[in-house]
Amino acid sequence: MIRKNPHYSKLQASYLFANIAERVGKFQQENPDREIIKLGIGDVTLPLPPSIVQAFHDAVDDMATSAGFHGYGPEKGYPFLREAIAQAEFISRGTSITADDIFVSDGAKCDTGNFQELFAQNIQVAVPDPVYPVYVDTNVMAGRTGQWNDGRYEGLRYLEGNETNGYVPLPAADLKADLVYLCFPNNPTGVTATKEQLKVWVDWALENRSLILFDAAYVSFIRDENLPQTIFEIPGAEKCAVEFRSFSKNAGFTGTRCAYTIISDKCVIWDESGEEIPLKPLWSRRHTTKFNGVSYPVQKAAEAVFSPEGKKEVRELTDYYLENARLIKKGMEALGYSCIGGGNSPYIWVSGGMPSWDAFDLLLNKAGVVITPGEGFGKCGSGYFRISAFNDREKVNEAMERIALALK
Amino acid sequence: MIRKNPHYSKLQASYLFANIAERVGKFQQENPDREIIKLGIGDVTLPLPPSIVQAFHDAVDDMATSAGFHGYGPEKGYPFLREAIAQAEFISRGTSITADDIFVSDGAKCDTGNFQELFAQNIQVAVPDPVYPVYVDTNVMAGRTGQWNDGRYEGLRYLEGNETNGYVPLPAADLKADLVYLCFPNNPTGVTATKEQLKVWVDWALENRSLILFDAAYVSFIRDENLPQTIFEIPGAEKCAVEFRSFSKNAGFTGTRCAYTIISDKCVIWDESGEEIPLKPLWSRRHTTKFNGVSYPVQKAAEAVFSPEGKKEVRELTDYYLENARLIKKGMEALGYSCIGGGNSPYIWVSGGMPSWDAFDLLLNKAGVVITPGEGFGKCGSGYFRISAFNDREKVNEAMERIALALK
Repeated sequence: MIRKNPHYSKLQASYLFANIAERVGKFQQENPDREIIKLGIGDVTLPLPPSIVQAFHDAVDDMATSAGFHGYGPEKGYPFLREAIAQAEFISRGTSITADDIFVSDGAKCDTGNFQELFAQNIQVAVPDPVYPVYVDTNVMAGRTGQWNDGRYEGLRYLEGNETNGYVPLPAADLKADLVYLCFPNNPTGVTATKEQLKVWVDWALENRSLILFDAAYVSFIRDENLPQTIFEIPGAEKCAVEFRSFSKNAGFTGTRCAYTIISDKCVIWDESGEEIPLKPLWSRRHTTKFNGVSYPVQKAAEAVFSPEGKKEVRELTDYYLENARLIKKGMEALGYSCIGGGNSPYIWVSGGMPSWDAFDLLLNKAGVVITPGEGFGKCGSGYFRISAFNDREKVNEAMERIALALK
Repeated sequence: MIRKNPHYSKLQASYLFANIAERVGKFQQENPDREIIKLGIGDVTLPLPPSIVQAFHDAVDDMATSAGFHGYGPEKGYPFLREAIAQAEFISRGTSITADDIFVSDGAKCDTGNFQELFAQNIQVAVPDPVYPVYVDTNVMAGRTGQWNDGRYEGLRYLEGNETNGYVPLPAADLKADLVYLCFPNNPTGVTATKEQLKVWVDWALENRSLILFDAAYVSFIRDENLPQTIFEIPGAEKCAVEFRSFSKNAGFTGTRCAYTIISDKCVIWDESGEEIPLKPLWSRRHTTKFNGVSYPVQKAAEAVFSPEGKKEVRELTDYYLENARLIKKGMEALGYSCIGGGNSPYIWVSGGMPSWDAFDLLLNKAGVVITPGEGFGKCGSGYFRISAFNDREKVNEAMERIALALK
């Protein structure tokens, strides 16, 4: 008899987005003429920039000729893309990362979700709260948690973010965890971590022989030159951290699909007999066995992100969303709401002064604006909501006018 | 201490392809002027056909405008593609499969590798021998096998293919297995299964409450109208089988990346308490949690496969490779070798009359032609080798001339 993975039974249905969709649907049905503005989901809206479009077209043309056709590519990604990434993002910042440390994939969601497969089932996992749900759900599926109980999974360690620690939880003296997920600039709070804060985590990981999975999907929104652009700027991180990056939010690739994961040769874990072993060959084995590379035209399009023109265009994209974020934050603060995030991130985390879903209903019903209730990201999100800066300027301005009228 | 998944230690290194690459490299170094012809790997060589290229370009142009831009798409795939697939491949053949049963992905390798995650760890798995190694390795990684011992993993059931059963193993009376992998037209042997043979498997699965994972990646090479084009032509298969398909081999998408998996609403498995449950929601949960959809331009390119022009062009591609296969088979048979496959498949499985690696070395050294030794696919491949029809006609002709000289 073919039996189900029993751990799937522990998974909570994604009530958050189903619930949002249901409430939005009902509102739209009752108010068919009302134009709803969505500042909920983290999806980009601006088109692909010209130099990326050109490279994409050129690569499709390659595929149309015998001489230029590309069949199976290297599962790890083409050297042209891995070398461009390494130069622009890591070598230029003085880290020890090289093209050989980069694994190109079709998404940071996939990679952050799949990476836990490399580890023993009985490791202790720690996740932030609030948190991107993929880190949690994939560990539930793998059997690393107990049941769902009072809004949390038994057996997971939750690193609580709050106003006291500025939503940058640091390891408590007694924290025991083998695998820790961190994400800066953070989804959902929009906060960033300083070099000093990341150093605390790296030192803790080295001391405890733990591994940090560092999600840097929003790194291109960092404008403060003092903030680290990669965890590999922290000495020792190459030994105890893996970084995840994406072209989704900087170059508008949410619908084009390209990302990458970085693992140094120096990064180690321990085998069943307690021997230290390199991590990279394990991911390489997983990646080559269960993945078959990213579309060649997509990789050529991604490469164009690093051309002089591409860099300029991509910077303009993120600047545009950051200006949206500034307008949203300014608007909410003018209404007396306490906000974090936004300066180096496309997300603004608002202290709503009421339960998350009340804020959601209020903004939907009175302003026709969709935001994301904070408690969808964990218990610590209760009383907060997330506003996303990913939309057109005109819609952001109108949303803020409507919100001002609704909340005043 | 962050510890490794201990099951990865059981995995055998992919000696096959590493070994092939090493021998080819050595030969090329010693014979720098000799042009090597590769009939080993199953990678297509013909360019993408015109109507697919046009659709690909048009979709890239969409991405360049605000109005046509596509961000995150549905994880399951766009309805335009799922509906085109359902109509052309399933509804038109009288099956009960609909667009809602189709999950678009970036590769059949990924899907056949990931699908086992849905099941309990202690199920009994059966695989053919010879076999596509991904089915085996992903179950080893998941801990469903014991150690590697005498060329096989302990705990796996091997369904032996041989000349007696024509490489279509049927379930023995005492076969107990919860999950069975089947692949027709087969990789590596090129054999096909009749409706009667598949019916034996489907009846067995229904009787034993087992699930069949049916890999149909090579279905577009079937020319014999009596052969089934999908397992869902067999009554009851919708209750006990999942099918995997790809655009790689029919439309030349090995480097473009698009595939799909089909699960009927009627397909059931059993939960931990022995209750019957539908399988589709489980894959949907996995797919939406760990995957973020296929590139929009790639899905538009795939949709063009089903246009009247696209259908014609794709048929020409597979006809071309089938003619290669015919020439290879004819050539080998003229030399006195017994061959199977080829007629409805791009692979020819040759009884070499000597150990696989001896045949490999002989053909490399005397003909400069690369084939794949059969034992790389399992113990039952010993003494056989696979020739792939994926190459240009001119190279296939030259390879056969060289082989004739070498073997005569």
